[in-house]
Amino acid sequence: MSAARSINLTRVDEWKDGRVHSFQDCLVAEEPLEIRVNEEPFTVTMRTPGHDLELAAGLLFTEGVIQSGSEIASISLVSGKNTISATVENAVAIDEFRRNFAATAACGICGKTSIESIRRRGIARPASRLVLAAETLCSLPEKLRSSQPVFGKTGGLHAAALFDNDGQLIVLREDIGRHNAVDKVIGWALQQKKIPLSDYGMMVSGRGGFEIVQKVLAAGIPILASVSAPSGLAVQLAREFGMTLVGFLRGRRFVIYSTPSRINCGLLS
Amino acid sequence: MSAARSINLTRVDEWKDGRVHSFQDCLVAEEPLEIRVNEEPFTVTMRTPGHDLELAAGLLFTEGVIQSGSEIASISLVSGKNTISATVENAVAIDEFRRNFAATAACGICGKTSIESIRRRGIARPASRLVLAAETLCSLPEKLRSSQPVFGKTGGLHAAALFDNDGQLIVLREDIGRHNAVDKVIGWALQQKKIPLSDYGMMVSGRGGFEIVQKVLAAGIPILASVSAPSGLAVQLAREFGMTLVGFLRGRRFVIYSTPSRINCGLLS
Repeated sequence: MSAARSINLTRVDEWKDGRVHSFQDCLVAEEPLEIRVNEEPFTVTMRTPGHDLELAAGLLFTEGVIQSGSEIASISLVSGKNTISATVENAVAIDEFRRNFAATAACGICGKTSIESIRRRGIARPASRLVLAAETLCSLPEKLRSSQPVFGKTGGLHAAALFDNDGQLIVLREDIGRHNAVDKVIGWALQQKKIPLSDYGMMVSGRGGFEIVQKVLAAGIPILASVSAPSGLAVQLAREFGMTLVGFLRGRRFVIYSTPSRINCGLLS
Repeated sequence: MSAARSINLTRVDEWKDGRVHSFQDCLVAEEPLEIRVNEEPFTVTMRTPGHDLELAAGLLFTEGVIQSGSEIASISLVSGKNTISATVENAVAIDEFRRNFAATAACGICGKTSIESIRRRGIARPASRLVLAAETLCSLPEKLRSSQPVFGKTGGLHAAALFDNDGQLIVLREDIGRHNAVDKVIGWALQQKKIPLSDYGMMVSGRGGFEIVQKVLAAGIPILASVSAPSGLAVQLAREFGMTLVGFLRGRRFVIYSTPSRINCGLLS
């Protein structure tokens, strides 16, 4: 991420135990990004500038507008604007996507229908033999934090990262929005033609809600770990799709919420 | 918040330093809520069940669909569904809201136009003489945490609270979504006919992004404090509207990003 675009500098006042001093602070940048599909407005998301093409491609994929990277005929930044213009081949699918979205919103929604809508999109159980050692999992938070260049300066943003079965970080992206950080990583994988990501786990800095689990499932990722708590619906979704969901990964402790068979717990005898 | 609706119970496995034990855990509930306005679908938000009427009323107000609580002719939960149905008096305004939204999304958006769109909505500088002592600010995080009944059980959700100039907590709401917690508090204030909230500050558990500052400004709240970092655009918006924005409020330290005149820093001589 280009530090120049993702950081704003400004003068602020710090109060500390009764004393005030003024200093030049780094703030994480936040700007709207418009995503246009086949010359129609599709969505606007507030994001931290940087890796915008990955963000747009990832979002179109994880939200089900496209089923694979090859459906994107072209994608580019509109010069001088916070706008990404994408041309996707399956225009019929976009209309269907919009109709389904409207239908879902109109039929008396609940957790059960939310999970059914994921299945209707053709998202399947992750096909993967990945198994991670507990000790490998425990090494991830420190790797994540030490690889966050903008967080170190601003203290203000989320990260998502892919790692392999040795715990090696493959790619990391930061954003003020948790969803965006995940979409950027998956957008990167789309561009690298690495989808489905069956051999990788994902680690996120925030909590694991339903929408994060949905995005991770769409990319075929078998293991999701977060430093914080998942929601009840996120756990239900992970269980129904056989995804391994780990929370409260901090120090030498974590909680497994779903499909523990992919974690080698290395039990003390 | 009714604990029964906002918590899901489930069995999980905890790994701790090489040992595993299984226990019954509390998860924060997350379910979609559909908001219908004048019998048309308006939006769907993933939220923690509880205080749904406040959430819907607050969201319609902070997003600019209504300008005051009196524009809501009726608002009710559709029996047996995760759906709120609202009737609002100014149906023309809703069409205009949708047109403006589409127009904003289509004109090459940026931080500057985002701030201009807040001004176009008629949102003004908070009219308030509220001044808070630094020591009062420092007392808020502990009050927030000790008043979060569901967080204590699940570790998984955000809070927003109103406080007065003595630091007394007036109302607190929790939700898995930061925005929702803020909308629930403002929805409560709408129902109590307390808008504009000129005599109160708001404290939020997460970071202070653009959309949170926008919602707080819409309710006329002069001071926003958060435990974490604000974004550059949030600071810019707070400065242009003369709102006091405080971040990193932890222990005996905080940072003032905008309009420090409302904080009595009690300088040591």
